Amino acid sequence: MKRSLMAALAVAGLATALPAAAQFQKPEDAIKYRKAAFTLMGNHMGRLGAMAQGKAPFDAKTAADNAAILETVSKLPYVAFLEGTDKGETKAKPEIWKNWDKFRAAAIKMQDEVVKLSATTRTPGLTVDQLKTAVGAVGATCKGCHDDYRQQ
Amino acid sequence: MKRSLMAALAVAGLATALPAAAQFQKPEDAIKYRKAAFTLMGNHMGRLGAMAQGKAPFDAKTAADNAAILETVSKLPYVAFLEGTDKGETKAKPEIWKNWDKFRAAAIKMQDEVVKLSATTRTPGLTVDQLKTAVGAVGATCKGCHDDYRQQ
Repeated sequence: MKRSLMAALAVAGLATALPAAAQFQKPEDAIKYRKAAFTLMGNHMGRLGAMAQGKAPFDAKTAADNAAILETVSKLPYVAFLEGTDKGETKAKPEIWKNWDKFRAAAIKMQDEVVKLSATTRTPGLTVDQLKTAVGAVGATCKGCHDDYRQQ
Repeated sequence: MKRSLMAALAVAGLATALPAAAQFQKPEDAIKYRKAAFTLMGNHMGRLGAMAQGKAPFDAKTAADNAAILETVSKLPYVAFLEGTDKGETKAKPEIWKNWDKFRAAAIKMQDEVVKLSATTRTPGLTVDQLKTAVGAVGATCKGCHDDYRQQ
């Protein structure tokens, strides 16, 4: 519900520069905001990845805490992909705005996989293998967007 | 409970550079992480402030959504104030580490006021005045730390 709202706002923002744009004074504010969200997502995804790969101690509570943060923050960045935010301190490719529907679908797919990951981490008796599968599914969505929509 | 854990990790990190430091590969990663959290906090606090001041339309659901995000993100940055992260791309003053207990208390005070704000926004029949009071209490804690611990 919330996700759909955010997506709708983003689309509205692209079409009319309102009301999503009202949340940001300047294009660079939107860029800074979405980059901040991705920084947090990358960090918490990294912690989950390390645990799934056996590089950090396996602990279901820690996994669930990280996944819950990821779930909240994964809903944030897309409202900030407004018109006029393709320039400046950003690695966002113009393909985002050229293929907005595909980009939006990829974002929603990522959010859906994060919701599943978060639910998985709260499964009683969570195993490393279960965590690994769910983290891998999220990771694939990260990679997909980075490959297509982010300058290397 | 979670907040206490994060605070404990931060203290442990300061004392031993473990285990909190294990979440960050390099000092600059910790700096980037905490700045990202503060960027999101500033944005969502700004939205709540605008609503409280009548500069944005008053809407209880929107206020509650923003406060919930603020509540999650307000728990994040302090684990990243590790030893060795007072240099580089940061406005953090050395006073943070010199007066760690005071800094930590100020952080907890902010988190507590954010929890109260979040609860307030979920009050049935929320009024602008109630929102204004709760936002003001959080704002005072933001300003307190910025004045004392952040370079202008």
